[in-house]
Amino acid sequence: MFKVKAYAAQSATSPLAPFSVERRDPGPHDVQIDILYCGVCHSDLHQARNDWSNSLYPMAPGHEIVGRVVKAGAHVTKFKVGDLAAVGCMVDSCRRCEPCEADLEQYCAEGCTLTYNDRERGSDKLTFGGYSEQIVVEQRFVAKVPENLDLKAVAPLLCAGITTYSPLRHWQVGPGQRVGIIGLGGLGHMGVKFAKALGARVTMITTSPEKGKDALRLGADEVLVSRDEAAMTKHRGAFDFLLNTIPVGHDVNPYLSLLKLDGTMVLVGALTALEPPPMGANLIGGRKRIAGSLIGGMAETQEMLDFCGKHNIVSDVEMIRIDEVNEAYERLLKNDVRYRFVIDMESLKAA
Amino acid sequence: MFKVKAYAAQSATSPLAPFSVERRDPGPHDVQIDILYCGVCHSDLHQARNDWSNSLYPMAPGHEIVGRVVKAGAHVTKFKVGDLAAVGCMVDSCRRCEPCEADLEQYCAEGCTLTYNDRERGSDKLTFGGYSEQIVVEQRFVAKVPENLDLKAVAPLLCAGITTYSPLRHWQVGPGQRVGIIGLGGLGHMGVKFAKALGARVTMITTSPEKGKDALRLGADEVLVSRDEAAMTKHRGAFDFLLNTIPVGHDVNPYLSLLKLDGTMVLVGALTALEPPPMGANLIGGRKRIAGSLIGGMAETQEMLDFCGKHNIVSDVEMIRIDEVNEAYERLLKNDVRYRFVIDMESLKAA
Repeated sequence: MFKVKAYAAQSATSPLAPFSVERRDPGPHDVQIDILYCGVCHSDLHQARNDWSNSLYPMAPGHEIVGRVVKAGAHVTKFKVGDLAAVGCMVDSCRRCEPCEADLEQYCAEGCTLTYNDRERGSDKLTFGGYSEQIVVEQRFVAKVPENLDLKAVAPLLCAGITTYSPLRHWQVGPGQRVGIIGLGGLGHMGVKFAKALGARVTMITTSPEKGKDALRLGADEVLVSRDEAAMTKHRGAFDFLLNTIPVGHDVNPYLSLLKLDGTMVLVGALTALEPPPMGANLIGGRKRIAGSLIGGMAETQEMLDFCGKHNIVSDVEMIRIDEVNEAYERLLKNDVRYRFVIDMESLKAA
Repeated sequence: MFKVKAYAAQSATSPLAPFSVERRDPGPHDVQIDILYCGVCHSDLHQARNDWSNSLYPMAPGHEIVGRVVKAGAHVTKFKVGDLAAVGCMVDSCRRCEPCEADLEQYCAEGCTLTYNDRERGSDKLTFGGYSEQIVVEQRFVAKVPENLDLKAVAPLLCAGITTYSPLRHWQVGPGQRVGIIGLGGLGHMGVKFAKALGARVTMITTSPEKGKDALRLGADEVLVSRDEAAMTKHRGAFDFLLNTIPVGHDVNPYLSLLKLDGTMVLVGALTALEPPPMGANLIGGRKRIAGSLIGGMAETQEMLDFCGKHNIVSDVEMIRIDEVNEAYERLLKNDVRYRFVIDMESLKAA
């Protein structure tokens, strides 16, 4: 065991502050990573503040982690010391259930082990995330990072990236399709980039005409302002697929009307109640579907990073120091970030 | 034009009573059908009483129609006088939109023309349904009936049958799959018969243990009483596919928990608000889907009738006279029918 510096919340109401967490000495299949950058996900804030009533304290958040391997166990084949490495939302799973065997560890029948706000498998030891100097993770849950990308802008790919890439791939989005990305935040801006790179015609669907302009810069072909009723009516039945990144429960009915016959809307952010409730008729009249999708498996995470390397895709980021993270949370609440805060971990090491 | 006897509602609050409706003289593509039997669908009641706020009066309901051809237009190729014939929920569509060209007239971009409570295309003439002596319909919207089936029990296949058959086929239900049919009524009892004939392992999911027993007689392999929390927990993640026939908005969350990874629940009856609302997490955690499905196209309706002929499948019916239809509606409201009322139209002709 060894100790590393971290930033942690001690309770739902205390701000994040310096803390020391223990990491296990790397076992034969483990990789020890020196963390260079960690993205700030909206779910870090939800969990630090116990918005989902499942928080474990002390909590060092962070699941958009990139760094370099400083130690590799004897049986580690994927990495050697000095390699770039990335860790996302999970660090373990049962590895023998049907989903795990299908490389869908995020849907592990026993529940995957989250990078933070969880307990190590078969132990009561808390897991601690990427707001820390180093992390030790079994190689199956560590991805390789293409060398050609801007590393600090790679970090958000590990959650915002895979969360949007996975459903676009699973529902086979591609050329000849009209795809709408609902909501322009950390997830939505990656959705636009991926859907475009996959060859679809991409519409950014947003409440904010101002953000719409930015969507065009990110690669969207057009913008649909969801508060503009005439525009929404004009786009009725126009979309093959909608990627809905809104992070809270909301009225999905106006979006369902945008779908074509047999169209699918996939939720990736809204965990809570869809209120006002969907009308059954909005699904029945057009054989439409509402689906959900959760991050992605490790094989697909690697595929996504390789795809990013090939297409030169990274996140749009705003760099912060670790001691700015509480302020960043306040700005997140106001949607005031374009489009992801990333912590330069040098600021923690130097502190 | 010619007049036929019918039973119609004059307003949302008046009972159905004898009425006379006009039918057009059959054109070159039309089939004139002497109606022998007409099923009583729950939606007849909804519309007669203006539950969906879209009713047109006078209204002669009925869209589960079987009879014999008494006249066929010069260009009619599918039927000759004396043939059995069936008419379901729609009698026309635009015939040139994408869905119509794909034999999915029920999703016609301009809206299909309903058998009753609608207006004939390009006209303000009301359509009148099967609670009548005769009907005139273009041959595309008339299906052929296998001669080996009990004709009075065929009538409900035209709505309850196709509504359940279509999603089971579209989502490729078959051997090796566990399928749950939610709700045992006119639709649910057909869902059990079809899912079983398609080779799936079928579970009837019902609030009523009593009805459960009947489900086994209909062919279900097992019964899950949805009010039994321990049984519901035991079946978590067990089902590949759920066919939800509940005819009103309801809490879908307990059913979503029964689905496997990538499982789909299809709504065929609930047009109204799904309350309490679905939780996004119940879709996201398992990449699950809620979909809707509306009756079926004419080609698939024919496929379904042929499938029924081959597998000797019909509805379980209770025969009534036309003057018993108001009483039948009251019993429908109490779920007191196993599983479909069918009107013997001889009782109208003799009246």
